[in-house]
Amino acid sequence: MSAVSTESNAGDDHLRETLLESRQVYQGHFLDVRCDQVRLPGGAVAQREYIRHPGAVMIVPLLDDGSVVVERQFRYPMNRVMTEFPAGKLDPGEPPLWCAARELREETGYSASDWAYAGILHNAIAYSNEGIEVWFARGLRAGVRELDSGEFLDVGTSTLEVLEEQVRSGELTDAKTLIGLLWLRQWRDGRWPLVWQALTEQNVNLTGAR
Amino acid sequence: MSAVSTESNAGDDHLRETLLESRQVYQGHFLDVRCDQVRLPGGAVAQREYIRHPGAVMIVPLLDDGSVVVERQFRYPMNRVMTEFPAGKLDPGEPPLWCAARELREETGYSASDWAYAGILHNAIAYSNEGIEVWFARGLRAGVRELDSGEFLDVGTSTLEVLEEQVRSGELTDAKTLIGLLWLRQWRDGRWPLVWQALTEQNVNLTGAR
Repeated sequence: MSAVSTESNAGDDHLRETLLESRQVYQGHFLDVRCDQVRLPGGAVAQREYIRHPGAVMIVPLLDDGSVVVERQFRYPMNRVMTEFPAGKLDPGEPPLWCAARELREETGYSASDWAYAGILHNAIAYSNEGIEVWFARGLRAGVRELDSGEFLDVGTSTLEVLEEQVRSGELTDAKTLIGLLWLRQWRDGRWPLVWQALTEQNVNLTGAR
Repeated sequence: MSAVSTESNAGDDHLRETLLESRQVYQGHFLDVRCDQVRLPGGAVAQREYIRHPGAVMIVPLLDDGSVVVERQFRYPMNRVMTEFPAGKLDPGEPPLWCAARELREETGYSASDWAYAGILHNAIAYSNEGIEVWFARGLRAGVRELDSGEFLDVGTSTLEVLEEQVRSGELTDAKTLIGLLWLRQWRDGRWPLVWQALTEQNVNLTGAR
């Protein structure tokens, strides 16, 4: 038993699986499901089933009074309404910051003058390649939202303290939102600084992770 | 724009989608993919594609010196080795605490005398009903691990501080592990207390969420 190094992949060959054959087993309107045959480190052959996902962004929208903008949306697989930070899938070729600004505007009506990249999270590594970039937004100006037809969600405000209490009590369980709260807590406490940038045509292609 | 209430679902009818017809579109060794026809709040009909998942547990294993046990495992959809807290899927009918003790023992060799339920997280609410219960374990005794054939992973130790720095730097991105660190930080700082219980045959059916 020794300290785990995560600094390099050089020593990871004894864990690596290699692709033998890939096939698409389902293509829906949204889900792209693959079943790949792989060779395991020990030499055996196994199957790996997973979702191919275009990637997504989540926004932690900070109002001038220190509160945050949150949504409530019915999530069909969960069969209930969940409290979440605004988020959405990347369109093909779309820069993540552009997507973040678009989703924030469409879903909440807000536009933001300043943005900061926090990090990326991988939410279902056993069966999806989805990555969600976490962006902070401030300098918010309220406007008119533009929901897609068939999109229904409520917009409101809350505070870090209230949301943390909802996590502790088991009321707030959406993983990306919990991680937004982790970043918000660490940033507020001065441990994880953010680098803010004005949103312009020149920097919309900037990204911290891709 | 008003404060969001998440205390009750009584006022959520204007967001709710209702099932019209459900069908299974793919059943693999692991993935169960559904495509349901639903009625939206506005009356239109739409399709919802999602994974049915049995649920899972994650363990935050605390060593007596304050460090934690972590794993490194190749995650095929990500095409790389990831640092994670130990976790695994529930077997049919398996009590989550039993699953947590089993996965910890099988994957790391450790058994734990005391357990505490932290919370549940939902990691892919747009397309999966997966919930991962977060359990803390302490009073660890090292033993021999029993990996499934075809399971390859390294076990090591780290600290909250090192892991937090790896999140901040973008090196550690697994969502469930980030949420384990959120709980660990809040518990260490005295904000989110845990209720510890000895693992016995009598309490193995206890759970905080299901």
